[in-house]
Amino acid sequence: MNILLKNIVCNGTVSDIYIEGSVIARIVTSADDPFGQIPASGVEVVDCQGKTAMPAFVNMHTHAGMSLMRGIEEDVPLKEWIDRIWEVESHIDGDFVYHATKVACLEMIKSGTVTFNDQYWFPLMARKAAVEMGLRPVISYVVLEHNNKEEAEFQKDECVRTYEESLGWKDGGIFSMAFHAIYSVSEEMMLWSAEFARKHGLKLHIHLSETEKEVRDCMAGHNGLSPVEYLDRLGILGPDVIAAHTLWLSDEDVRILGERKVNCVHNINSNTKLASGYRFRYNELRDAGANVCIGTDGCASSNNLDMLEAMKTTALFQKAWRENPKALPLYELISLATRNGADALGLDTGRLEAGMQADICIVNTDSSFFLSPGSFLSNFIYSAHSDCIDSLISMGRFVMRNRKVEGEESILRDARKELGKIM
Amino acid sequence: MNILLKNIVCNGTVSDIYIEGSVIARIVTSADDPFGQIPASGVEVVDCQGKTAMPAFVNMHTHAGMSLMRGIEEDVPLKEWIDRIWEVESHIDGDFVYHATKVACLEMIKSGTVTFNDQYWFPLMARKAAVEMGLRPVISYVVLEHNNKEEAEFQKDECVRTYEESLGWKDGGIFSMAFHAIYSVSEEMMLWSAEFARKHGLKLHIHLSETEKEVRDCMAGHNGLSPVEYLDRLGILGPDVIAAHTLWLSDEDVRILGERKVNCVHNINSNTKLASGYRFRYNELRDAGANVCIGTDGCASSNNLDMLEAMKTTALFQKAWRENPKALPLYELISLATRNGADALGLDTGRLEAGMQADICIVNTDSSFFLSPGSFLSNFIYSAHSDCIDSLISMGRFVMRNRKVEGEESILRDARKELGKIM
Repeated sequence: MNILLKNIVCNGTVSDIYIEGSVIARIVTSADDPFGQIPASGVEVVDCQGKTAMPAFVNMHTHAGMSLMRGIEEDVPLKEWIDRIWEVESHIDGDFVYHATKVACLEMIKSGTVTFNDQYWFPLMARKAAVEMGLRPVISYVVLEHNNKEEAEFQKDECVRTYEESLGWKDGGIFSMAFHAIYSVSEEMMLWSAEFARKHGLKLHIHLSETEKEVRDCMAGHNGLSPVEYLDRLGILGPDVIAAHTLWLSDEDVRILGERKVNCVHNINSNTKLASGYRFRYNELRDAGANVCIGTDGCASSNNLDMLEAMKTTALFQKAWRENPKALPLYELISLATRNGADALGLDTGRLEAGMQADICIVNTDSSFFLSPGSFLSNFIYSAHSDCIDSLISMGRFVMRNRKVEGEESILRDARKELGKIM
Repeated sequence: MNILLKNIVCNGTVSDIYIEGSVIARIVTSADDPFGQIPASGVEVVDCQGKTAMPAFVNMHTHAGMSLMRGIEEDVPLKEWIDRIWEVESHIDGDFVYHATKVACLEMIKSGTVTFNDQYWFPLMARKAAVEMGLRPVISYVVLEHNNKEEAEFQKDECVRTYEESLGWKDGGIFSMAFHAIYSVSEEMMLWSAEFARKHGLKLHIHLSETEKEVRDCMAGHNGLSPVEYLDRLGILGPDVIAAHTLWLSDEDVRILGERKVNCVHNINSNTKLASGYRFRYNELRDAGANVCIGTDGCASSNNLDMLEAMKTTALFQKAWRENPKALPLYELISLATRNGADALGLDTGRLEAGMQADICIVNTDSSFFLSPGSFLSNFIYSAHSDCIDSLISMGRFVMRNRKVEGEESILRDARKELGKIM
């Protein structure tokens, strides 16, 4: 059924938003009342008086299947953390990923995210979960073979099979290619992954320059080349690459990422909690021509999937380490969490305009947080929490109404059962 | 009416908590069922199956009356910001502070705070608002005369009058003394404030070493003494001093603050948003003997009063700038937001033990955030948001039940009217 959102603040004006199928068909000021003649049937009219529409978030780096692994290992550095995670992951199966991804989607819905760029095991099960939840997952096949030849051959075959299956995904989900990182994947498999992605027009989702150690080890092993320089020499970097972290960058690295128009995903909560670093070079990357986005990373490190929280933390760290309160102003910050992610993925979302996908947060501003002379964006990002997001529309369908998500109880119950099996 | 919380997780065990008047009378494991013989009448029995009790937060630095000023000035440094704030404040009156403090209390209740250490204009109106909301405000008379002699005499008289009135505060609220900062108050008035505080056994709430500029200016004007050294020479520092910020500290400053057992209040959201700094010397202050607490600062800078958010941001910045993921572990972090604040104020709160004030957050753990093998503290602080706090008991009385606070709508409506008058 089509939807008409009446009297909702949209781009600063009280508007009516008419949604046809999955698309925003028209946005007009409510005063003009141009929808007097909308069809009497087949349209759900929702009065949104006093509420504000915002583009749903695009979370550009997730491991949704880790939603049941938070707190497994706290207050330890990345190396110890990842070893422990890999140990736990050796025990999980497709059912676990399915239920964990359902929980992750539940949490993303409650915090206003519709599109997420995922990298995890059992991608078919992750897709199934996300599509059932009504979201738009970008699901990658992840190459990660620790330089094991046999495993490499197995992953190539499985990747091809997964890709072929993805051609039949009529009900949603976007397939992409991924390799984990330069320290966990052989050069041969990185090249194979990039070639496979380009042959089939897929995005390539990787981790890059996350820790100082990664950079140091790379320089030691590759004649002084940084991870960015190394991948660039291999011909891997380009506008189809989505590089998570890009935290430890030289000026030359920044120049390369800009020139290659790489999509750089900043994950501040994960980086700081693991003490990987915090001096993300946002201004420099933006000015060099890179497309900067925000992600949350997986729940095991960050420890949630909340893009509103990620935006505030991002702003605070940028202002703090640059010693400049004007760093990363609000209008840029919101782009990082919405349209920049959409641009990275080549999707018509992240904006409230006619012709775009109807991915809309309906924000309840009837609370202390919005009771101020500050701008909506200031109140939304700096003061409020994600529970101000009252309802969420994903591709023209309500996936949350008045904070209620269908099936929430059974999702939590089933996840508890799965956890009991592996812990 | 007395309260019996049945089957609530308390300090790691499923317990029954019996509250008599404003005090926690007994905590026993539910399995022992020692309350079989509780009086049949006069006790409200609340089944808290699946919920967890936590001490309500102690917010050690607020300007509650600024809750209606958020976003007035965004993305500017402290000096510009404070000039603009002082300009707006020249137009406010007692009614404004009353309504703004009501909003602040509403927000604090919704995020689990019972006790707050406030510093703002029209203290009698702030107290009235907070006591009506059922909270425990520490309300200071604030000296701030910009070296104006006439104003100083006026403030002395008004301070004495306010103190005398405070002796009659039977229904709640704790009176304290405050001066704003070394750069806004004359030496004579700082000394007068400290003497007045000590004569009457009051806490002394000040801002101290918030910005690098404050330290530089002080050293230039006082023969190279830092603000901490300067106040120490004046004999002002002691265990009755609550010093907000203490962000720019030399080793010698740390030593002095430790030796004098000063209560140092860290306000990370405010400090980073204004780009005042972020390298708060938590470990050093703790080791030197200072009592470190957490505050949110006023809403105009931070931009909310959420102690759960403040804890997470505090941990992320400590781990980040110290480049150590083990910095500020969870069990210390929670103390900063609860018992350390109680100790600073000399209050029997911040702990769930028999004999303590019944200031209790009832946390709903039936959500994705708590569905993990991590510890409760990890899930509470790193994953969840304050809306997991289902109900709040302040001094033995429910001030929130199932996220509902009595009078919420009229508080917001009245505040909107007040805002309309001054903006």
